Amino acid sequence: MNIILPDAVVETDGGKIVLLVLDGLGGLPHEESGRTELESARTPNLDRLAKRSALGLITPVAPGIAPGSGPGHLGLFGYDPLRYNIGRGVLSALGVDFELRPGDLAARLNLATFDADGNVADRRAGRPSDEENARIVAGLRDRISQVGGLDVFWESEKEHRVVLILRGADLSDALSDTDPQDTGVPAAPIEATSPEGERTARAVEKVLEEANRALADEPVANGVLARGFATFQRYPSIRERFGLRAVCIARYPMYRGVSRLLGMDIAEPAETDAGSIEVLGRELADHDFAFVHFKYIDSRGEDGDFDAKVAAIEAVDELIPGVEALDPDVIVVTGDHSTPSRLRAHSWHPVPVLIASPWCRPVDVDGFGERPCMRGELGVFEAKHLMTLALAHARRLGKFGA
Amino acid sequence: MNIILPDAVVETDGGKIVLLVLDGLGGLPHEESGRTELESARTPNLDRLAKRSALGLITPVAPGIAPGSGPGHLGLFGYDPLRYNIGRGVLSALGVDFELRPGDLAARLNLATFDADGNVADRRAGRPSDEENARIVAGLRDRISQVGGLDVFWESEKEHRVVLILRGADLSDALSDTDPQDTGVPAAPIEATSPEGERTARAVEKVLEEANRALADEPVANGVLARGFATFQRYPSIRERFGLRAVCIARYPMYRGVSRLLGMDIAEPAETDAGSIEVLGRELADHDFAFVHFKYIDSRGEDGDFDAKVAAIEAVDELIPGVEALDPDVIVVTGDHSTPSRLRAHSWHPVPVLIASPWCRPVDVDGFGERPCMRGELGVFEAKHLMTLALAHARRLGKFGA
Repeated sequence: MNIILPDAVVETDGGKIVLLVLDGLGGLPHEESGRTELESARTPNLDRLAKRSALGLITPVAPGIAPGSGPGHLGLFGYDPLRYNIGRGVLSALGVDFELRPGDLAARLNLATFDADGNVADRRAGRPSDEENARIVAGLRDRISQVGGLDVFWESEKEHRVVLILRGADLSDALSDTDPQDTGVPAAPIEATSPEGERTARAVEKVLEEANRALADEPVANGVLARGFATFQRYPSIRERFGLRAVCIARYPMYRGVSRLLGMDIAEPAETDAGSIEVLGRELADHDFAFVHFKYIDSRGEDGDFDAKVAAIEAVDELIPGVEALDPDVIVVTGDHSTPSRLRAHSWHPVPVLIASPWCRPVDVDGFGERPCMRGELGVFEAKHLMTLALAHARRLGKFGA
Repeated sequence: MNIILPDAVVETDGGKIVLLVLDGLGGLPHEESGRTELESARTPNLDRLAKRSALGLITPVAPGIAPGSGPGHLGLFGYDPLRYNIGRGVLSALGVDFELRPGDLAARLNLATFDADGNVADRRAGRPSDEENARIVAGLRDRISQVGGLDVFWESEKEHRVVLILRGADLSDALSDTDPQDTGVPAAPIEATSPEGERTARAVEKVLEEANRALADEPVANGVLARGFATFQRYPSIRERFGLRAVCIARYPMYRGVSRLLGMDIAEPAETDAGSIEVLGRELADHDFAFVHFKYIDSRGEDGDFDAKVAAIEAVDELIPGVEALDPDVIVVTGDHSTPSRLRAHSWHPVPVLIASPWCRPVDVDGFGERPCMRGELGVFEAKHLMTLALAHARRLGKFGA
C-alpha cells in the first residue's frame, strides 16, 4: 500500500520510529550560569545521542507563538496546528476517554460557587476533591440526559473540571463562553458568535439552566461555567497520512486524547516514566511509531523551579539506554514547546530536537542543548515538518517526482 | 481589549517595542578583508546589544527576492508583502502626505522632455529643481481638476517626480505604463492589462492628453510619463492586528507613507538622525511601538561606496545608547533589505536582525554581523514573522490553543 502524503510517497515498510516528547523541554539561560535547564542537566545519554544525531530547533506553531499542549503535539505529529485547531472542549472530552462522534459538541465546564445575588463567588467551587466531583457529576448525569431532542453527556475530569458533550444534528460551536473569568459578576450569557450558532446557543442555554437548577441545593458547587465550545471532526489518521501503525504511551489523559483523535492505538498507561519504557518494550513489536510522553519537565518549568526542571530532565536521561536497547531505527527527542522556568509558562522559544539514525550529519557538539542544536543540519523549522523528517530517516519516504 | 491575530490572542498591555530600521543594512564581504560593511564597522553599541540578543537573519519577501522599500517595510511590520502589495503610485501619494481614500487611483508621473517628433528626449526633463517642479505642478492643478467626471489631483514630489491621483467610481489599476523606459521613442499608449481596466484606461488617456497640452509651451518639461498605476485599499491597521499604538519616526516621506497606510501615528520628522532619537524620547510615552528609520546606509550602498556605508552604520551605532536610555522592553535592529555596496542596489540577501530583551538565548558572538547572526536562535526567517517575535518578547501574546 502506498499513500499520498502532500507531494511525497509514503512507504508502509521501513524502520521503526520512537518519538520521546519531553513536555516543555526548551528553556532560557539561568541568570548566573548562562546555561538553560537542558544545558545545565547532567545528561550523558542524551549527549551521546546528540553527537550522532541530526540536530535543530523546532518552532511549534509559528515564530513568536506559544502553544498550548494540543497544538504543540499536533505539530509534532505532522498536523499543521494552524489548520487543525482542536477546541478546548474536544480536547477535554478526548482526555477523559469519551468516545466522541463527528458532529458532537463539547465544552469544558467549571463547577463554581455563586452567591445569593447570582454573582460568581469562586470560579472553581473551592477545588472539590475528585470524589466530590464524581458524586456531583453522577447527579447531573442522572437528572439531565436529554434536553430539547439532544443527548447530553456529563464526564468528570479532576477537581472542579467537568466535560459536557451534546449530541444531535447540526450543532455549531460558534458560541461564546459563559465563564466571565472573574468573580463578583454573574455568568456571561451564552451567545452565538456567528448566525449559524443561534439555534445551538438556545439549546445550550437550556442545558446550562437545567444544570444550575439541579445544583441549586449544593452547598458549594451550586452552578457551572462553560467555555471552549468545540465540535468534533474526525481528522485524517496517522495511518492514512503516513502509513504508520502508531501507539501512544502517555500517563496523562490529554495526551492520550490528542493521540486518539489521530487514530493512534492507546497503550495502557504506566504508573511511572520507567514503566512507560517497559510499555514501549511491549508495544514496539506491533507498531511502526511510538510516542512516549514525559510530563514533569513542563510541570517543574511552570513551577518556576529551575533546579527541579533540571532534575526532571536528568530523570528522563536515565531512561534513554532502555530505549536504545529496543533498537528502534530512529529515535527522536524533543518537546512540544518550551517552558522556561524563568517564565513559569509555555513560551514561543524554539525547542531543541535530535533525530538519531544512521542517516544524518552530526556536528561537533558537547551535548544536547539549545545552543548546540542551533548548529545542526535541521536549522530552525516548523513542527509540522518533524514527522516527514522522522519518516525519511526511517527510510519510509519515496522520491517526490520523476 | 483583546484582539485576534491569526489564531493567537494579542494582549494590548505589555512591553514597549522600538524597531530601528537601518535601511539596506545587509551587505556582502569586501573583496580584500572578507568582511561585510556591518562586520567592518566599529559598532561597540550594536555589538553589546548583539551579545544579549536573539539573533537571526530575515528574508524580506522570499528567498532570492530583492524587495523595494514598500514590501521591505510591510514585511517588517508583519504584513506579508506577497499578500499586501502596495503599488508605486499609492506609495508615492502616501509619501507626499496626500490623504488617499479607498478606491482612489494613483500613478507616479515623470516630468519629461519630448522632441519635435514627439519622441522622449529626456525621461526626467533635466531633473528640474523642486521649486520648478512646484511651479509646473501648480499650473497643472489650476488647469486640470476635473476630467470626464473624475476629480484629478496633482502633487509635487522632488525634482522630476509628480503624483497623479484620480477619484471617482469603479477605477481600475489594470493599466500599463506610458513611460517607455527609453529615449528616442514616443510614450507608450496606455492600455488596459485586463478587461476591467478598459474604461479607466480611456479616462486616464484623456487626463494625460490634457496634461501634455497644458505643458506644450514649457521649454523643458513639456510632457509627462506615467507608471505604477495603483488603487488604494485600506489595510487592517497595526492597532487592529496587533493591538499596538504605533508611531513612525522617519525623515523621508515614503516611509511615513507606508506607516500611514497601516494606521501608525506619524511623528513630526526631525532634521537629523540624532533628532529622530529625540523624537523617539518624546513619542515613546504615548506609544507601544515605535519605528525609527535610518536612510543613509542604503544610500551609500546604492552609491557603491563600501567605506561610506561603513561610516553610515557607525553613525547609527553612536545613537544606540540614546535608545537604550529610554529603556524600552524590546529593541529590534534590522534592515528592510540588503544593499551590498558591491551590487549598488537592493539585493535578496537575508538581513541580520537582533531582538534585545530579557527573554532570549544569547550565543557567543563577537558582535553584530551577518555571520554572527547565522548562529542565532532565530535562524533564517521571513520578515512577516518579525512582528510576532517582537510581540512575544514584549510579553504581548497569549497562548495559542489549549
